[in-house]
Amino acid sequence: MSRLRELLLGHPLPTFKSGETRLDNVRALAALSPDALSSIAYANQEIYLGLLAAGWVGLNFSLPIALAIAALLAILTLSYAQTILAYPAGGGSYTVAKENLGRLPGLIAAAALLIDYVLTAAVSLTAGTAAIASAFPSLWPQRTALALVLLTIITVANLRGLRESGTLVAIPVYLFVFSYLAMIAYGLGRALIEGTGTLPAAALPATEPITVVLILHTFSSGCTALTGVEAISNGITIFKTPEARNARLTLAVMAVLMGVLLLGSIGLTQHFGVVAGSEETILSALARRIVGSGFPHVFIQVATLLILLVAANTSYVGFPRVSDLLAKDLYLPHQLSSLGDRLVFSNGIVLLSALVSVLIVIFGGDSHALIPLFAVGVFLAFTLSQIGMVIHWWRLRGSGWQWKLVFNGVGAITTAITLLVVAVSKFLDGAWIVALLIVVLVFAFRAVEHHYRLLRPQLSLSGLQPSIHPPPLQRVVLAMSGVHRGVIKALEFACSISDNVTVVYVELDPGKTDHIRQQWLIWGQGVPLVVVPSPYRSVVGPILDFLEQTDREHDDGQQAVLVMPEFIPRHGWQNLLHNQTAWMIRVALFYQRRKYGSGRVIIDVPFQLDR
Amino acid sequence: MSRLRELLLGHPLPTFKSGETRLDNVRALAALSPDALSSIAYANQEIYLGLLAAGWVGLNFSLPIALAIAALLAILTLSYAQTILAYPAGGGSYTVAKENLGRLPGLIAAAALLIDYVLTAAVSLTAGTAAIASAFPSLWPQRTALALVLLTIITVANLRGLRESGTLVAIPVYLFVFSYLAMIAYGLGRALIEGTGTLPAAALPATEPITVVLILHTFSSGCTALTGVEAISNGITIFKTPEARNARLTLAVMAVLMGVLLLGSIGLTQHFGVVAGSEETILSALARRIVGSGFPHVFIQVATLLILLVAANTSYVGFPRVSDLLAKDLYLPHQLSSLGDRLVFSNGIVLLSALVSVLIVIFGGDSHALIPLFAVGVFLAFTLSQIGMVIHWWRLRGSGWQWKLVFNGVGAITTAITLLVVAVSKFLDGAWIVALLIVVLVFAFRAVEHHYRLLRPQLSLSGLQPSIHPPPLQRVVLAMSGVHRGVIKALEFACSISDNVTVVYVELDPGKTDHIRQQWLIWGQGVPLVVVPSPYRSVVGPILDFLEQTDREHDDGQQAVLVMPEFIPRHGWQNLLHNQTAWMIRVALFYQRRKYGSGRVIIDVPFQLDR
Repeated sequence: MSRLRELLLGHPLPTFKSGETRLDNVRALAALSPDALSSIAYANQEIYLGLLAAGWVGLNFSLPIALAIAALLAILTLSYAQTILAYPAGGGSYTVAKENLGRLPGLIAAAALLIDYVLTAAVSLTAGTAAIASAFPSLWPQRTALALVLLTIITVANLRGLRESGTLVAIPVYLFVFSYLAMIAYGLGRALIEGTGTLPAAALPATEPITVVLILHTFSSGCTALTGVEAISNGITIFKTPEARNARLTLAVMAVLMGVLLLGSIGLTQHFGVVAGSEETILSALARRIVGSGFPHVFIQVATLLILLVAANTSYVGFPRVSDLLAKDLYLPHQLSSLGDRLVFSNGIVLLSALVSVLIVIFGGDSHALIPLFAVGVFLAFTLSQIGMVIHWWRLRGSGWQWKLVFNGVGAITTAITLLVVAVSKFLDGAWIVALLIVVLVFAFRAVEHHYRLLRPQLSLSGLQPSIHPPPLQRVVLAMSGVHRGVIKALEFACSISDNVTVVYVELDPGKTDHIRQQWLIWGQGVPLVVVPSPYRSVVGPILDFLEQTDREHDDGQQAVLVMPEFIPRHGWQNLLHNQTAWMIRVALFYQRRKYGSGRVIIDVPFQLDR
Repeated sequence: MSRLRELLLGHPLPTFKSGETRLDNVRALAALSPDALSSIAYANQEIYLGLLAAGWVGLNFSLPIALAIAALLAILTLSYAQTILAYPAGGGSYTVAKENLGRLPGLIAAAALLIDYVLTAAVSLTAGTAAIASAFPSLWPQRTALALVLLTIITVANLRGLRESGTLVAIPVYLFVFSYLAMIAYGLGRALIEGTGTLPAAALPATEPITVVLILHTFSSGCTALTGVEAISNGITIFKTPEARNARLTLAVMAVLMGVLLLGSIGLTQHFGVVAGSEETILSALARRIVGSGFPHVFIQVATLLILLVAANTSYVGFPRVSDLLAKDLYLPHQLSSLGDRLVFSNGIVLLSALVSVLIVIFGGDSHALIPLFAVGVFLAFTLSQIGMVIHWWRLRGSGWQWKLVFNGVGAITTAITLLVVAVSKFLDGAWIVALLIVVLVFAFRAVEHHYRLLRPQLSLSGLQPSIHPPPLQRVVLAMSGVHRGVIKALEFACSISDNVTVVYVELDPGKTDHIRQQWLIWGQGVPLVVVPSPYRSVVGPILDFLEQTDREHDDGQQAVLVMPEFIPRHGWQNLLHNQTAWMIRVALFYQRRKYGSGRVIIDVPFQLDR
């Protein structure tokens, strides 16, 4: 097992390797922007599908909607440029909301972030499979399976300890950026040569009239183009000095690239009157329209898939980071702190992948079905972070604070309105699931924190005299299911720590009791045997009841020590055949503490089976 | 929790109540025949759907196929009448095959039986929902959900300890029998009055020609009408004396009823030229044709649903019974023996329900999709049992053995041919899944038995001197994660059983080690503290390695005892926040015995958290 694990996942990494290397701006852009840049892949698709219902009339609203989203992008960029100034150590939504708005908004932002990381991975993977299946139509019906295969690859890569911020990641990112920029430039050239837009080639039946509701609905879905904008302000620490300056410059470059890609692709789609077939994405149809169906088209689709894979992978960086912050603030089990056991970090990766795979399967590998869940969390985190920044400037009042406050204030108002539009127009489509999950997560965070806060004084040694008082001679009870070598070994151990040992046997089949008693006369060497009847065929209950009873009878303020013989079989699967009762007793003592007290010492005496 | 369990599931039942009461023949028929009688519900549907592909021409083969199945029924009935004589204590396929054919055929029969119990429940539930949805068409799209609701009801009823063999069960069975007999009689009357069969009302396009393959395929599916025929020969012990005579009489009555229901319903369907709509079963369409769409039709559909529910419930009797037989023969974990802990029996019920629900969901709540899996196992068990009986008579040679051998021989040959037809014609439709599962189960049975067989000599006390040698003074190692009250309590316990105690601390964050050492100077009272570095942030590995190392250094042939402080939190869910490392250490010692030895005693010293 452990050899297989090492072969598949590589050697463990020592702690001193966890320090991040600083990146120049070109590499930093590649490391922090994949989520933001790749989101045009699904946002374009959403705008197209949303307007398609209203036919050609509807599709003519593509560019206006894209312009509105670009305006929102500009506002968000200016807002996050402020955040970079205020939080040079990295200001994620959780940190900003917690420090400026308080505990509850911080937790809401954290819950929204965790959910968004899961959805980013699911949406990116499904959009990526749709991109590649547009180039190879035979893959289209297998999109769910394909998405799961890609998820498996990402999972294994992360369990191996993938280093996300390097040259390796930069390749797909710049491949994507340059192939799209080239396509848009070429398309613009063709548009200029060909003159006014081509007329609609085919009739496109409208199933719905074009209404304000339909436009707002489409705008909500299209806003997913903005996911990932905040990544640079979270990751300032990976920039070279001067960090803030470099980060702001990179943020500006990223925003311009996002704007050009979004407006360029949507503008050309509308200009050429491109319509996608039922088994193709609109971006693929656009590429086919511009560069034809040959190798360049396939190249663009592969580049789209690759950047979406990198984007999905960013969740495997972000999810543990937010978990770590939450665990340090006691809102999550401390095992989720990133410097914990490597095994625990692996559990986090597996958990994330499991959640993503469930989403992919439930929503049939279709990014369009996942989008309604996506936008709410994203804009909730945006809004809380912006409001937090407004409060931050109001409190701090440094030089030029009024301007900074206005920038973030505009950002807060715009994102809040967008959040409202998204939440209302998508509520029944799936946004309610996310709203419910956020409430549940916030309650869970608070319950965990409450527990840890109460734990500290209970464990504190203050007020205790530094001296050891070993308890007097222990009463020991040995539970046995029959007279065999395992029991004799356990009995020997029990006798080595106490001379007050009792053996208890639960009578399931009264016909066998006499035989047990006779055997005990030979092997028990005078240690008293108590036979407990069990009319309900339960083993666990009678043993625990017997322990309670002897404690009451002795009334010495102590709980008898319970000794259990256990088998250690040769092969792992054989554990299914043994020790079930011992496990059930342990679980009962852990989970039914009201009934069975809880201070009882349990001793496992293993007996090794060699064959 | 335990109060909720009691409210939902009722009080546990004491052992002395497990003796079965003897039933008169009327009640015994009701207790043992639901599976057999209700199977016309899905068998009819299969014959209809199988022949429908060939249009009117095909449907005219319904009655011939039904006659072939009735002939098979007669042969099987005669065969099982012999089994009743030979095995008055109950001769299930497993027992008969094991005793007469040997170990491997017995295990194959047992695997087939276990799979069939799961499929009986799944097919009966889905056929039952189809029956009721035929009366209330709005339920048709919700059949999967409805089947799962019914499954939940059956599960809860069984967890409560439903008594299957009583008057309560007799009501739905006789309701079904009499409503169908009345319908068939009324239908025959109408057929006589109306004269020759009505001509086909509508054209029925044939998508396939009528071929031998199509007929054999339909015959295979229709053979599911015979499931449950063996139930009476398994349950002879519930009859009053003379058991064998009563059982044979009841078997004859059941076979006649099955024949009348099968031939009557199919004959009338063919005579009236009944065709079902896409959201209705053929039996429902027949009832509608004969008694109209009013209350009588609804009544018949409800009666069909009820008997199918009772049939599904028979799996909850049969599955544990076969598991018990296998566990007694060491082929399954002994916890599955029926007199084990009630909890384990409940686990069996929950396991069975989980498997059934998976089948219902995967196959979309459609009994037609499940049938290809069903017939193979049924006929495999039939065939093995019949061949076993032939061998039985050949060996025994009592009075008139030749005739008995001939009866069972004909049965064996017929069922073997049917098995071949079923397996070949249904292989790609799903029979391969069952074939594969049977192989896997047989291997699992053998592995379990092998393990138990090797276990006995290892545990045997023979050759051992009856005397207790408590090991000398124990070396004790206490693993701690920090200096707190829980550790002090564990230390006190450790000092009470040994004066050779070492405390081990795994250094995850080197910055904290000095503080720990200083605290230990105050609280450790001279007990030595060993700090183990952990460059890979693992806790479990370094502790286990340290234990190995001290054992090697001391070289006294003993393994140090490991003491672990554990928290017992107030609420069950808080266990998620604690004791993870202790559990991981335990699992590592259990499952990595090659690496970490296996004889080490583990002591849990719990510390109770009150808030």
